[in-house]
Amino acid sequence: MTSPRLIDLRSDTVTRPDETMRVAMSAAEVGDDVLDHDPTMRRLEEEIAVKLGMAAALWVPSGTMGNLIALMIHLRRGDRFLAPRAAHVLEAELGTAAWLAGGMPQPLEWALGPGRVSADDVRAFASAGAAPYYALRTRLLCLENTHNFAGGTVTPPDEHAKLVAAARDVGMRVHLDGARLWNAAVALGVPPAALTVGVDTVQTCLSKGLGAPVGSVLAGPTAFVAEARRVRKMLGGGVRQGGVLAAAGLLALERVEDLAVDHANAALLADGLAELGWAVRRPETNIVIATVPDTAVTLAALDRVGVLAVEAAGAIRFVTHRDVPALDIAEVLRRISAAGSPAPGNPAQPARG
Amino acid sequence: MTSPRLIDLRSDTVTRPDETMRVAMSAAEVGDDVLDHDPTMRRLEEEIAVKLGMAAALWVPSGTMGNLIALMIHLRRGDRFLAPRAAHVLEAELGTAAWLAGGMPQPLEWALGPGRVSADDVRAFASAGAAPYYALRTRLLCLENTHNFAGGTVTPPDEHAKLVAAARDVGMRVHLDGARLWNAAVALGVPPAALTVGVDTVQTCLSKGLGAPVGSVLAGPTAFVAEARRVRKMLGGGVRQGGVLAAAGLLALERVEDLAVDHANAALLADGLAELGWAVRRPETNIVIATVPDTAVTLAALDRVGVLAVEAAGAIRFVTHRDVPALDIAEVLRRISAAGSPAPGNPAQPARG
Amino acid sequence: MTSPRLIDLRSDTVTRPDETMRVAMSAAEVGDDVLDHDPTMRRLEEEIAVKLGMAAALWVPSGTMGNLIALMIHLRRGDRFLAPRAAHVLEAELGTAAWLAGGMPQPLEWALGPGRVSADDVRAFASAGAAPYYALRTRLLCLENTHNFAGGTVTPPDEHAKLVAAARDVGMRVHLDGARLWNAAVALGVPPAALTVGVDTVQTCLSKGLGAPVGSVLAGPTAFVAEARRVRKMLGGGVRQGGVLAAAGLLALERVEDLAVDHANAALLADGLAELGWAVRRPETNIVIATVPDTAVTLAALDRVGVLAVEAAGAIRFVTHRDVPALDIAEVLRRISAAGSPAPGNPAQPARG
Amino acid sequence: MTSPRLIDLRSDTVTRPDETMRVAMSAAEVGDDVLDHDPTMRRLEEEIAVKLGMAAALWVPSGTMGNLIALMIHLRRGDRFLAPRAAHVLEAELGTAAWLAGGMPQPLEWALGPGRVSADDVRAFASAGAAPYYALRTRLLCLENTHNFAGGTVTPPDEHAKLVAAARDVGMRVHLDGARLWNAAVALGVPPAALTVGVDTVQTCLSKGLGAPVGSVLAGPTAFVAEARRVRKMLGGGVRQGGVLAAAGLLALERVEDLAVDHANAALLADGLAELGWAVRRPETNIVIATVPDTAVTLAALDRVGVLAVEAAGAIRFVTHRDVPALDIAEVLRRISAAGSPAPGNPAQPARG
Repeated sequence: MTSPRLIDLRSDTVTRPDETMRVAMSAAEVGDDVLDHDPTMRRLEEEIAVKLGMAAALWVPSGTMGNLIALMIHLRRGDRFLAPRAAHVLEAELGTAAWLAGGMPQPLEWALGPGRVSADDVRAFASAGAAPYYALRTRLLCLENTHNFAGGTVTPPDEHAKLVAAARDVGMRVHLDGARLWNAAVALGVPPAALTVGVDTVQTCLSKGLGAPVGSVLAGPTAFVAEARRVRKMLGGGVRQGGVLAAAGLLALERVEDLAVDHANAALLADGLAELGWAVRRPETNIVIATVPDTAVTLAALDRVGVLAVEAAGAIRFVTHRDVPALDIAEVLRRISAAGSPAPGNPAQPARG
Repeated sequence: MTSPRLIDLRSDTVTRPDETMRVAMSAAEVGDDVLDHDPTMRRLEEEIAVKLGMAAALWVPSGTMGNLIALMIHLRRGDRFLAPRAAHVLEAELGTAAWLAGGMPQPLEWALGPGRVSADDVRAFASAGAAPYYALRTRLLCLENTHNFAGGTVTPPDEHAKLVAAARDVGMRVHLDGARLWNAAVALGVPPAALTVGVDTVQTCLSKGLGAPVGSVLAGPTAFVAEARRVRKMLGGGVRQGGVLAAAGLLALERVEDLAVDHANAALLADGLAELGWAVRRPETNIVIATVPDTAVTLAALDRVGVLAVEAAGAIRFVTHRDVPALDIAEVLRRISAAGSPAPGNPAQPARG
Repeated sequence: MTSPRLIDLRSDTVTRPDETMRVAMSAAEVGDDVLDHDPTMRRLEEEIAVKLGMAAALWVPSGTMGNLIALMIHLRRGDRFLAPRAAHVLEAELGTAAWLAGGMPQPLEWALGPGRVSADDVRAFASAGAAPYYALRTRLLCLENTHNFAGGTVTPPDEHAKLVAAARDVGMRVHLDGARLWNAAVALGVPPAALTVGVDTVQTCLSKGLGAPVGSVLAGPTAFVAEARRVRKMLGGGVRQGGVLAAAGLLALERVEDLAVDHANAALLADGLAELGWAVRRPETNIVIATVPDTAVTLAALDRVGVLAVEAAGAIRFVTHRDVPALDIAEVLRRISAAGSPAPGNPAQPARG
Repeated sequence: MTSPRLIDLRSDTVTRPDETMRVAMSAAEVGDDVLDHDPTMRRLEEEIAVKLGMAAALWVPSGTMGNLIALMIHLRRGDRFLAPRAAHVLEAELGTAAWLAGGMPQPLEWALGPGRVSADDVRAFASAGAAPYYALRTRLLCLENTHNFAGGTVTPPDEHAKLVAAARDVGMRVHLDGARLWNAAVALGVPPAALTVGVDTVQTCLSKGLGAPVGSVLAGPTAFVAEARRVRKMLGGGVRQGGVLAAAGLLALERVEDLAVDHANAALLADGLAELGWAVRRPETNIVIATVPDTAVTLAALDRVGVLAVEAAGAIRFVTHRDVPALDIAEVLRRISAAGSPAPGNPAQPARG
C-alpha cells in the first residue's frame, strides 16, 4: 500500500512560488540593499506603504522580525504592553517580546468574541496620572488582525477604531500585527488601510496566503522606519540583493483578491467537518479551528490519512491556502470520513485548556 | 487646626528598627562580604537556610533582587514561566522578570480562591513531548505565599504540595516568592519549611513584618546559591561590611511569632471597615483589601484624616505591622467614621477593572 | 558633461546574480524551511558543512546574524571574549556581540602582522585556576579570516593551529568569522577546511565574492546547529521557501576558484595606486587599504570621478569582486591619474587613528 | 608555631566601621526610602551632591551598581563607549557594561601615563558627520579617577578638562567612575568638585578609604537622578530604612582628609619594597602596584607571612587604608624581609601581560 498524497493544511506559509512568480524573481532589477537601496525592494516598500496607509515601509525576512523590531522601538526596558490572549507575539515568537524587546506582557481577554478585545479593558491599564516612579508603565497596545490562534478572526474597522481611541486616550502607542491583514480586508470587503487607521506601526506578511516565498513588511512613520532599518541590521536582517525576493512580493500584492477562494475553502472544510461530527467553529477567513478531546491523537490520525494540520492553543488548526484547491478540501473530508472520523478520539480523555 | 498624626498602613516595609535592633546592629562583628564572607552575614544565611529547609542562602538588598536573581538563573532566553495573576514578579518589579531574566510570563487564574492557583492549570502548560524547535518552553512555576495583591492570602501546605507535584511532573522548576512567607507560616501555625517543600528556590524578606531595616534572603541548593552570589555581584548587590544589616536580620528572625499580632490587627481593621459599610474581605494575614468605587478619591479622603494606604491592583490596600498597635487601628476606624466614611465615595464613579 | 559610469569598489557585497544564477534560483525545488526543511536549503547546508569540515550547517540571512547566533550560544552573560583589534564583530555589527550576545570584548593586538594575533596573547587571558566568583571569565576566541578591516589579510593554517591550541589549553571555545574564508583558502591554495581545523563554529558568506544575492552559513556540531536553528527563529531569521536563495548559494560554491581573479585585480589596483604615489599595502586577497591624510576628502574626490570606495578603520578601502573586471581596474587608475591623484589631499590635515 | 596576625592590604573595601561610626548608625533617623525618602539618606544625598558639584545624588548599595545605572541610562543598545584600558567597568564589573547597559566598549591606551588617556584619542572616535545608519555610534566617555588597576593614578584637573572638552566637541557624554575620587582630590589638594567639572554623571564610594560599611553614590542632573532611582529599583537596589547606612556615609565624608595618611603609608610601603629589590612604581595615592615574575607564587609567599594582597591586571596590588597604620606597614616590610623577599620569585618565569 502506498502512502496517500499529502494535503498540507498546517499553514499558509507552505505556499510555493508559482511559475509566474519565479519568472518575476529571476528578472528582478537588484542592488545592495544594505549600502544603498535595492531598487525593487524600494518599489515594494513604497507600494505597500501606500496600500497600508502608512508613510514608509521596510522589508524584513519574517513577520517575527517585523513584530520584534516594532516592539524593540516602541518599548523601553520593562514597559508593560497589552495584547489579546494567545496573540502571536505572546505564544509563537519565542518570548522575544519579553527578553529582547524588553516588554512585560499583559494578555487581554477576548471580551467581544474570539480574538477580539475591548476598549474598556485597554483603558483599565492606563497608568495612573500620579503613578510613583517604581510603577510599571503601560506603553503599547499590540493588536492582531486576523487573530491567528483564535481562528483567523477579524476585528472590524469600528472595533479597531475604538481600541485605537482608547489606547490614545491613555497615552499608549499601537502596533498592529497584521500578518494576515489581507485576509481581514478581503473578508470585510474593505481596503487594508481601513484596518490600520490610527496605528503607529503595522507588520504584514507576503509569505503567507499571498504566496511569496520569503518576506514581510514593517510600516510606520518615516523616522520610525529609519530606526527600524538600523535595528534590522542589528538583528542580521539586512540583506544584499533582496530585489529577487521583493519582486515576488510585488506580484503577491496583485493577488490579494484570491484570498476569497481560501476563505470559501475554509468554510467548505468547516461545514464538512461539522457534518462529520467535529466541534468546529465557522471560520471568518482561512483558518479552521476544531476543538477535539485529544489533539495529539487526532493529529496522528489525520497524519495517517495524509492530511497535515497542527496543534494551536490546545485545538487543531487547519489553514487553507492557494496551493490547496477546493477539490483537495473535498478529498480531505473524504479521507477523514473513510477513516472513521478521527476527531472524537478517546472520549475518556479530558479536553485541555 | 493641626494635621493629625499620620498612621502609616501603606506597607509593612515602613517598620523601623527599634532600640534593641539598633544595639544589635551597632555591635555586629563584620568583614568584607565580597572578598570573604562577613561573619554575621554568614551566620544569618546559615540560620535562615535551616529555617526554610534549604541547603544554603544568600543575603540580598531587597526582595526584588532576590526574585530577579532566581529568575535569571532558572530561565533561559525566552522561556515561559507561570505565576498567579497579579503576582509581585508580574506587577511590581518593573518588568525585570521579562526584560532582564528573559522570561515570557503566563499569568494563572486564581482558580482556588484569591491568589491561589490550581495544579491542573499548571499541567495545562506542559511543553508537549515532541514540541517543535520553535515552540515556547515552559520552564518555571513561580509561586507567591502569601499573595500580596490578592490580599495577603495563604496557600496551605496541601495545595502547595499539589502545585509542586504538578510542576515536577511536567518538568518545570519551582521558585517561591515568599516575601511574606513568615506571615503564611504564622497564620497556618506551621513552620516556614512546611511551605517550601519541594521548591527549588525561595526568597523571603526581613525588612517587612519582621522589622529589619534592609534585606532579604534567597535560598536554594548550594550550587544555585554560589551562582546567585555571582549574579548578585553583577547587579551591584554585593556589599562590604553587611554584618550591620545581617545583625538586624538575625534579631528579626526571633520575632516571627509577633506577626500574629499584626494578623489580629488586620482582622480588627477589616471588621471595623465592614461595620462602616466598606466592601472588604476578611484578611488571612496582615493585608486588608477594600474594593471601593474610586480608589483615587478614597485614598485622598484617607490622606486628609492622616491614614496612609495605597492602591493595589485596583483596590485599596492597608497593611498592618509592628509599628501600628491595636490602639492605632481603633484610631483609624474612629477617624474614618468621623469623616463620614470616605470609602463609598462618589457612587456615580464607575469601578475600575 | 555627463557623469562617469560608476565603478563600485565599496564591497564585494554589491555583486549581482548573473543570468545562470537567476535561472538556478527560478528552478529551485522549495519547501517551508521553518516547518520542515526546504530541500534546496538542506542540500546547501549539507554541502557547505562538508566543505568546511564541520558536522552540520545552517543558512542565515546575513553574516551578521551568523556571527550573532554563534556568540549568543557560546557566551553566557558577561563572559569575556577575545577578537583581533578592529574585528568585524567589534566594529561593524552594531555592538550586538556586547548587548545581545552578552559578551565583554577584549581586542587583541595584531602581534604577527595586520589582522594576525598571537597565541601568547590568547594565553594571557586564561582565567586563573582559582579565579574568585566575581572575576570575569574568558570564554571564547573569535577569529576572523580573512581580516576585513586589516585589509583582507590571511591567517595561514599553522598560525591558526597555534591560536586554536592556545584557546583550547586555557579552556576557551573558538568561533571563526570566515565571511571571506573562501578568499583566504584561494590565496593560500588550501581547501577551506584547512582553515577551520579545531574551531567550534564558523560563519561564512555566500553573498560576498561568491556572488549570491542573499545568505550566509553558520556551521558547527550537530547539537550546536540545532540550537542555532532555534535562535535563528528567535531573531526572525527563519524563512519559508528559502530554496530560491539556497539555489544561488549552491551555484556560488562552484565559483570559489574565480576569487583568484579578484585577488589579481586587487594587486593590479594596489600597484597602480602605489605608482601614483598612494600609501598602500600590498593586498593579500581582494581588499586594498590605502592610508591617506584625510579619508573624507579623498573619498569625495574619488566620488567625483565615479569611483566608489569606503572608509574602513580610518583608511580607504577598495574591494575587488566579480562585477569589476581587470579593464575596470585600469579605468579606475586612469581616472585617478587624470584627476591629479586625489589621495595626497591636504598634507596639512593630520591622519586619524 | 602560631600563624602571624593577618595584615590585610587586599583593598580599602575591608575597612570596618569604628565605634563612632557605629554609634552614628544606631542613632540614625530613618524612613522607608522606597516609598518616601529616608531622611538621613536624603541628607547624605544632598550633602554629597554639593561636594561633587552636581545637582542631585542617589545612594546605591555599591559602586558597581552606580556605574551600571549610569551606563544603562547613558547608552542605547549597541552604542560604543570609551574607557581607559583596564578600567574597572571593563575588567571588574562582570561584563555588565556590555550585556546589561548594552555598550560596546573601546579601551583607550594610557597615552599620558598609567591610567591617563589623551583627548586626541577621544576625538579619534568621533562618529563621522555623515555616518551611515549601520555604523556604530560612540556615545560616552567613561573616565576613572583615580584609576584603580593602573595603580591608583590621578588625572589632574587640566587633563580632565581637556578630556571633557574633547568628548563634548564630538557629542559624547561623560561619566566619571570616581570610586576613589576622594583620594585623587586629597593627593592633588583640590576639592572633589574640581575633578568633576563638565561631567554628566559621577559615581563615588563611601565604603572604600572613607570607611563606611556599605554604600556608594551616583550624582548628576536632577532628571538623571530621578531616572536612576527607577533603574535602581529595577535592579533591586532600592532599600527601606537605609538611613542606618547613610549615617555612616555622612560621618565618612568628614574623614576625607584622613586619606593623606593612607597615601603616606603607601609611599612608605613602596619605598620599602623597592629597597628589598621589588619592581614597584611610586604610588600617587593609596595603591601600590608591584610587577613580579609570577604573581601566584608571590601572593602565596605573602600569604605565608600573613600579608594579604591581590592580583590586579597581572601585577600585585597592595592597598593602604585606615585600618592599617604605619606601624603595620613597617611590620609588612619586616616580614617580607625576614622571609627572604618573596617577590623576585623564580626569575625563569616569564612575566605576564
